[in-house]
Amino acid sequence: MIDCDVHNDWTSAEVLLPYLDANFRDYLKRGEIPGPRGSFPHAHRPWLHPEGFKRTDIVAANDAPPGSDYELMREHLLDRYDVEYAILLGEEAIEVSTLGNPHYASALARAYNDWMIETWLLLDSRFKGSIVVAPQDPTGAAEEIRRVGAHPDIVQVLVSSGSYRPYGDPVYHPIWEAAAEMDLPFAAHLGGQGGLNYNPIGGGPTTFFWETHALLCETGMAHVASLIAHGVFEKWPNLTFVLIECGVAWLPGVLWRLDADYKALRKETPWLKKLPSEYAREHIRMTTQPLEQPKDRQHLWNVLEAIDGKNTLLFSTDYPHWDFDDPTQVHIPPE
Amino acid sequence: MIDCDVHNDWTSAEVLLPYLDANFRDYLKRGEIPGPRGSFPHAHRPWLHPEGFKRTDIVAANDAPPGSDYELMREHLLDRYDVEYAILLGEEAIEVSTLGNPHYASALARAYNDWMIETWLLLDSRFKGSIVVAPQDPTGAAEEIRRVGAHPDIVQVLVSSGSYRPYGDPVYHPIWEAAAEMDLPFAAHLGGQGGLNYNPIGGGPTTFFWETHALLCETGMAHVASLIAHGVFEKWPNLTFVLIECGVAWLPGVLWRLDADYKALRKETPWLKKLPSEYAREHIRMTTQPLEQPKDRQHLWNVLEAIDGKNTLLFSTDYPHWDFDDPTQVHIPPE
Repeated sequence: MIDCDVHNDWTSAEVLLPYLDANFRDYLKRGEIPGPRGSFPHAHRPWLHPEGFKRTDIVAANDAPPGSDYELMREHLLDRYDVEYAILLGEEAIEVSTLGNPHYASALARAYNDWMIETWLLLDSRFKGSIVVAPQDPTGAAEEIRRVGAHPDIVQVLVSSGSYRPYGDPVYHPIWEAAAEMDLPFAAHLGGQGGLNYNPIGGGPTTFFWETHALLCETGMAHVASLIAHGVFEKWPNLTFVLIECGVAWLPGVLWRLDADYKALRKETPWLKKLPSEYAREHIRMTTQPLEQPKDRQHLWNVLEAIDGKNTLLFSTDYPHWDFDDPTQVHIPPE
Repeated sequence: MIDCDVHNDWTSAEVLLPYLDANFRDYLKRGEIPGPRGSFPHAHRPWLHPEGFKRTDIVAANDAPPGSDYELMREHLLDRYDVEYAILLGEEAIEVSTLGNPHYASALARAYNDWMIETWLLLDSRFKGSIVVAPQDPTGAAEEIRRVGAHPDIVQVLVSSGSYRPYGDPVYHPIWEAAAEMDLPFAAHLGGQGGLNYNPIGGGPTTFFWETHALLCETGMAHVASLIAHGVFEKWPNLTFVLIECGVAWLPGVLWRLDADYKALRKETPWLKKLPSEYAREHIRMTTQPLEQPKDRQHLWNVLEAIDGKNTLLFSTDYPHWDFDDPTQVHIPPE
């Protein structure tokens, strides 16, 4: 069992200081938002989570954040559920996408990657790492992918699903080119709301976390359509896009609509050679948590059948977050 | 057979001049965008429709816009398909929602409503009308609903699905109150992108019409969640929300997620007394066109079963638009 969504946190963003470009150290240490969270402006959105994002039963020593304690993670997750590999995504690192300053954003991403490689990946042979990049700095992101992408325990490139443009846009193609060159999947995880990025909900700012959480698939929907439409998978046929924590039940409807509209409007995208649903089947993967929970499980299983879930879903727990999926309780078809 | 999405157009926005508040006539006639489209800034979005929005086989006299010619509409739609009632939505009128000037937006909406009532509704007893309001002017919108809502042929209040906030937000409650008082459903139709309103796609501005059209459900998703979360249907139990031209296949997934998250996070919305899916089943209706078209029709029929489509879907053609659904070709279960 491979867990594709595990959050390794830091005790404080100041752990990044030794890894950060010297000219930015002062910015992280004394600038706005010093301390544990650091320059990762996670909270610039209209709502606040009424429970907090972390599981409250995970209490690390010295009140360190859940996810920062390897021993607890081993006990709660790796050993308890016999995890073969756990893919680490960091906690706040993807929030660099919200910063208007692309230089600082890329510097923070580099510092996080080096810290993660030199600390977390050495702790346990079951850990695999994700390279965090700042998508608003496509050249810098591509350089970073080439700089550390050959590390044997790095398994993907990671950004937030919140974005300034949907990720198929040519502005991001340097990133795709580098990922293809290093043969790494490109993953987007829920986050990156506010700051530089567009509102993640189409109808405007939302009020409640509850309401918002049900709609956070909207960024993922945009990326799926955009990546297919811009021909990213024609240009780089070895690329895989992994959508993390965005649910799955919306995918069939989007693909049905893309397929039908493509038949009528293909002149907009003459570089495509297959139906959108065929690109999706070959190049797009989605993690399970938080998997939709209809009253009648057959309704979800119908969805999984429509997207060939057996071959397109990746298992994930989202440890140590509040909506963690216990691997023994996931409601997917037994086979 | 009742067609819930028919677009009656004008030959030119200047038909509204006699109905417009005197102090705004000059603005419509000589201001920016004079002529056929008038002050309805429909085109302020990042993409252009590569085919145009209208059916090219509908050629009205003197090159008037398709939809502006009643005789053609009677021939092509009302008589051909034996339509019992056709609900008129206008063409550009809902675009008033994009204007930053709420006074002018409401004045244009009033002028459209009077023009529609005094011309279109008199043409055919099969026509039913929608009151267009400017949602960014909640007080003015409520006044307009009370001013013309009692007309026997007015059947709903209408806004664009593109919005500044999702429609459950209390800023809009004067509109809901007036609609409930007049016992009129509140409908949102695709449109209102740009200007005052938020980008309708969560991941940022899109490139192609094709890609965008597959994602335009995103505003509808936000309204459904917002209306339920803010307790609009508890406050006004006689209200119905009609979502027009936003598709249906995304609804089950959103409701499953809302139900599951509500169980965990209900403290955010203590005024709710039922599961979100129960409010949806009682108060939300969706039009068919453009109904999703999976290769395997059973996949869509599974969706319709999950949302009790037999009791929640409204038939629509979208005459005279390019993606018109021929009533004899709609792929819904025969029963």
